Amino acid sequence: MTDLRIAVLGVGMMGADHVARITERIKGATVTVLNDYFPEKAEELAATIPGCRVINDPLDAIADPDVDAVILATPGPTHEKQLLACLEAGKPVMCEKPLTTDVATSLEVVKREAELGRKLIQVGFMRRFDHEYEQLKSLIDDGTFGQLLVAHCVHRNPMVPPGFDSAMIVKDSIVHEVDVTRFLFDEEIVSVQIIAPGSNPQAPEGLKDPQIAIFRTASGRHIDVECFVTTGVAYEVRTEVVGEFGSAFIGLDQGGVVRKQRNPVQSSAGERKVAGIWGGDITPSFVERFGAAYDAEIQRWVNAVKAGINVDGPGAWDGYAAAAVCAAGVKALETGEIVTVDMVDRASIAGA
Amino acid sequence: MTDLRIAVLGVGMMGADHVARITERIKGATVTVLNDYFPEKAEELAATIPGCRVINDPLDAIADPDVDAVILATPGPTHEKQLLACLEAGKPVMCEKPLTTDVATSLEVVKREAELGRKLIQVGFMRRFDHEYEQLKSLIDDGTFGQLLVAHCVHRNPMVPPGFDSAMIVKDSIVHEVDVTRFLFDEEIVSVQIIAPGSNPQAPEGLKDPQIAIFRTASGRHIDVECFVTTGVAYEVRTEVVGEFGSAFIGLDQGGVVRKQRNPVQSSAGERKVAGIWGGDITPSFVERFGAAYDAEIQRWVNAVKAGINVDGPGAWDGYAAAAVCAAGVKALETGEIVTVDMVDRASIAGA
Amino acid sequence: MTDLRIAVLGVGMMGADHVARITERIKGATVTVLNDYFPEKAEELAATIPGCRVINDPLDAIADPDVDAVILATPGPTHEKQLLACLEAGKPVMCEKPLTTDVATSLEVVKREAELGRKLIQVGFMRRFDHEYEQLKSLIDDGTFGQLLVAHCVHRNPMVPPGFDSAMIVKDSIVHEVDVTRFLFDEEIVSVQIIAPGSNPQAPEGLKDPQIAIFRTASGRHIDVECFVTTGVAYEVRTEVVGEFGSAFIGLDQGGVVRKQRNPVQSSAGERKVAGIWGGDITPSFVERFGAAYDAEIQRWVNAVKAGINVDGPGAWDGYAAAAVCAAGVKALETGEIVTVDMVDRASIAGA
Amino acid sequence: MTDLRIAVLGVGMMGADHVARITERIKGATVTVLNDYFPEKAEELAATIPGCRVINDPLDAIADPDVDAVILATPGPTHEKQLLACLEAGKPVMCEKPLTTDVATSLEVVKREAELGRKLIQVGFMRRFDHEYEQLKSLIDDGTFGQLLVAHCVHRNPMVPPGFDSAMIVKDSIVHEVDVTRFLFDEEIVSVQIIAPGSNPQAPEGLKDPQIAIFRTASGRHIDVECFVTTGVAYEVRTEVVGEFGSAFIGLDQGGVVRKQRNPVQSSAGERKVAGIWGGDITPSFVERFGAAYDAEIQRWVNAVKAGINVDGPGAWDGYAAAAVCAAGVKALETGEIVTVDMVDRASIAGA
Repeated sequence: MTDLRIAVLGVGMMGADHVARITERIKGATVTVLNDYFPEKAEELAATIPGCRVINDPLDAIADPDVDAVILATPGPTHEKQLLACLEAGKPVMCEKPLTTDVATSLEVVKREAELGRKLIQVGFMRRFDHEYEQLKSLIDDGTFGQLLVAHCVHRNPMVPPGFDSAMIVKDSIVHEVDVTRFLFDEEIVSVQIIAPGSNPQAPEGLKDPQIAIFRTASGRHIDVECFVTTGVAYEVRTEVVGEFGSAFIGLDQGGVVRKQRNPVQSSAGERKVAGIWGGDITPSFVERFGAAYDAEIQRWVNAVKAGINVDGPGAWDGYAAAAVCAAGVKALETGEIVTVDMVDRASIAGA
Repeated sequence: MTDLRIAVLGVGMMGADHVARITERIKGATVTVLNDYFPEKAEELAATIPGCRVINDPLDAIADPDVDAVILATPGPTHEKQLLACLEAGKPVMCEKPLTTDVATSLEVVKREAELGRKLIQVGFMRRFDHEYEQLKSLIDDGTFGQLLVAHCVHRNPMVPPGFDSAMIVKDSIVHEVDVTRFLFDEEIVSVQIIAPGSNPQAPEGLKDPQIAIFRTASGRHIDVECFVTTGVAYEVRTEVVGEFGSAFIGLDQGGVVRKQRNPVQSSAGERKVAGIWGGDITPSFVERFGAAYDAEIQRWVNAVKAGINVDGPGAWDGYAAAAVCAAGVKALETGEIVTVDMVDRASIAGA
Repeated sequence: MTDLRIAVLGVGMMGADHVARITERIKGATVTVLNDYFPEKAEELAATIPGCRVINDPLDAIADPDVDAVILATPGPTHEKQLLACLEAGKPVMCEKPLTTDVATSLEVVKREAELGRKLIQVGFMRRFDHEYEQLKSLIDDGTFGQLLVAHCVHRNPMVPPGFDSAMIVKDSIVHEVDVTRFLFDEEIVSVQIIAPGSNPQAPEGLKDPQIAIFRTASGRHIDVECFVTTGVAYEVRTEVVGEFGSAFIGLDQGGVVRKQRNPVQSSAGERKVAGIWGGDITPSFVERFGAAYDAEIQRWVNAVKAGINVDGPGAWDGYAAAAVCAAGVKALETGEIVTVDMVDRASIAGA
Repeated sequence: MTDLRIAVLGVGMMGADHVARITERIKGATVTVLNDYFPEKAEELAATIPGCRVINDPLDAIADPDVDAVILATPGPTHEKQLLACLEAGKPVMCEKPLTTDVATSLEVVKREAELGRKLIQVGFMRRFDHEYEQLKSLIDDGTFGQLLVAHCVHRNPMVPPGFDSAMIVKDSIVHEVDVTRFLFDEEIVSVQIIAPGSNPQAPEGLKDPQIAIFRTASGRHIDVECFVTTGVAYEVRTEVVGEFGSAFIGLDQGGVVRKQRNPVQSSAGERKVAGIWGGDITPSFVERFGAAYDAEIQRWVNAVKAGINVDGPGAWDGYAAAAVCAAGVKALETGEIVTVDMVDRASIAGA
């Protein structure tokens, strides 16, 4: 079977990672077109991929006849126009979060896709493809825990790029827990509270880090999220759910265990101070923690597109819902209040 | 050296447990006097202990010349009068939580002890004597984590005695995390929020279980507590602290690991379905989880009394602070608001 | 770049698994030719793969111009002839263990490849591609443990196919630890002892299960292996190494942890017996345990073949060495003696 | 009830530890008499214990009317005479291992006690009182694993006192696994093999460390023991048993888990290298690992003596059996052969 021909728009860290993934590991797909705001970056990468060329206008890239499907790894503000172009061209698109940068345009995208009557948009919430989240979801769906009641999430990033501000902790980091909550509980989040306790002395001046998000779902369930972006330690993501019959914990430390002296070994046995430790390494970044999840996400998306299903994962509605919850979150951060999430009723949009 | 002669007031589950502890394991102490609201219960127990007799009036028991020190395991409403009697008699007293049942009388007890100019009252927050909490405190004090920023607590009880109401979840269960927070962060809690999400379908009608408590400390730190009293599973207590240089987790599952078939073994090898599991048992109750902590608490108290120090652990002020935070918690539960803790300034009471 | 065209010989469980792997997950490779002793099995599978056909003679399949490289998943006794045909055709071949079924023919294959002056043969010891074994090897090579001194291996299979005999435990199961030992210690095994203690009552009549293998390496290091093929539990593989500065353990239980009641939940809260357990599932078979390792093995082999390197992993010499150690092992099993491994000196074969 | 009056003979590390234990933690017991080969050591310690005096002749100490029971922590060569004195005096004795230093005298002690018709001798194999070993034994006895088939033991000491020789690794260290095997399998060991692979470069010149001991039980079961005395890391003791229905592992790393940076924290956030680790401390010595087991051992022994039972744990026969297995072990170490254990039939000694 011929390969799916993919245009990747945006070749920053995330886009370049997808290009490498498709080129090296994804079965049945080829990157045929690249696009970036900085054309030379796209050219440099394209030169390493047989049969791949650069198209400088993103909308031209989407429309190109050598393109069967699109991956959007461009900055959020460009998403709306690019997504609508994909819809218009009838081409499946895998859109890295956010769907768009505000609730109104996200809703517009949802409506347009609904009018089209064909699902073409998948949103890049990769945790749904992580083996442990999949297992947890499957245990939940099998009734292992009865009714879910509570969840606790921990999401710790070791460091923050320059310019990262307090609202971005909600929109770029906590957004993952927004989707995890909706995925695991299978219902919408109706209110958000953000607690910004005293900041980490290691955080840049003015950055409210950590933040604690508290979600309430439509049926009244409680989810809390501890989010740090400046721990200096490693990349740590954990989720615990508690239901009426038990609980489960994912994201625990894994891998081999090493046992050794705490301090460098002294040459003279007689003088050694004994202080043995056991343990292992923590995944340094999201690449190690969720690399396999990204692979699964893209492989399943490619398979779905080739099978004519186009979407196998979270869709435009999930992107809109995340936007609505994050908008409430930013307001909650600013006001200190519990903010109700303002969302349209899904049933009001036929086909959404 | 002669044994410390102890009167135990109240021989319900907790008091009887202390009697057994002192009789079987605590070095240098003897139970010489028992007292209970139901004299026959005290008589039955006393009959098993050489040299022990029953005194029916609790104040007489405290005053008895054969009594060097007192353990109060009586119902909370009787504590105030009994504590004041101990102070008057100049006898060291180990008082099971609560110090008293309201903030005003707790403060009164603090003041009377302060006026006496001698610490005689210890309060039974046994977690401070648990090996893991001690280790955690020691790591914190050594600066391992830099400044503490956040803590998460999980406190799950398998079942609830009849009559247990929603406010008791705050005052009898979450009170332990109030003390843990004050112990680990070494500062006061200034506000409390209680979230009562949708109740566990396994909980008795009307009981708001689970509850999520959110504490803010004087320096702005955030602590959250998930408390269940009807999980039906086991007794689970965990605490995680996060500071500027790292984090630590105590209360993880421990002990040997068994690996076996999930289902009963079939006799015919050919027909076996393979589904192996690994894991272990969870401590069924606080007895297994904190038994050693209670032993350490009482042994160290006995040693302190014999050494003339009288108190080696949380004192009257800690009991008062816990009462103040719990009072705010109950109000927070009733109103859904974030409630400021109303406490006097410790410095205003000379000797407190 | 055009796909590598692969002939898979033998479409039993292992071969069919490789076909599915290449068809669904391996980038840059296509199965163009299938062969099996039962042609209808090959035909049935080929019908599901676009552009794939069946060639009934294995040597014709190897020689076919539509075949760039070969995977041998045929029964061991046919390997010698098929490997020599691959060498003659100058085609890279990935040969599932064993290289051949006896030491002499294995040596013959080593010599023929050496005469050819080109490495074409890789042997399917997949554990070398397992993430944890790779990490362990890397820690060893980095000097983390200083000189390696001892290793312990546990290798437990839940059940045994009919006809599995005691010598097969050495040749088909323990052979993996033979290769793991040579991989981790980077030296040859010089003697083998097999202890067959009292058999598992669950084992088929006459099968000596478990078996304990004891290896001594050229530099005198000790490795022991516990091997079961009838535990009835799950598939469990662990390795621990101990060196002069510390030790490491891989193959520990992983994944999320579930906490629930031991017994089915009773409807009436009051009657529940509390007995909570924590834990998780064990991988039921080698498919779950080493699936990712097989993927990595084949992907890296495909990449190596396309890059003209042809081999990226254990080669013919490793297959010969394993055969020699297993032959000593079978003799050790039969005699109860410590048997010296009879191997030629690698340096005596130019190019081996 | 009056305290049990105990004479402790030998106040080296082990004896002094027992003195501290009894003085500080053991209920119902007092040290009334001390004895040591160096009288000033005994005097120094006695001066810290109210009512305790020193008796310079060990046999006088045993016979003293102020002594109800004896703890022997003297060097092994003195045990025979001291044990026989205890038997003659009819005084219960807790004897640290070894029972005596050779098989013949151990058998003589067994016979004398049997003739007496009263069990008075307990041997200090403290692991039987460790919580995890107790749990494991209880799971075995409950039939959790069906018939036991195999066990693996790891026993690692961080360092060796000067003068420790290769045979002492068998007699002083592996002897613990001899008793563990007999305790868990509930049958005798019939043969021993000792493998001394290449020595740890960190070990003193000439010391054969590590050693691997292989035991075969009367019913044919296999136990292996890896023993190191110079790891330089910490004190590590693990045991795994495998039976027909599953397996269990004790001695895993426990306690809280800390997560932090691998390297010292840098002051500038921007320059930090992220390399997070998780883990905890290993018990540095047998004191931390088995301290609670020693407490339980002595407390239960004191209780047994006061109850007139005198022995609650391994007895003289267990000491004799351990001596016989260790004698075979030393011969096995010297010869490299599998050595049959030479023991009398227990049934041949009425009352043993």
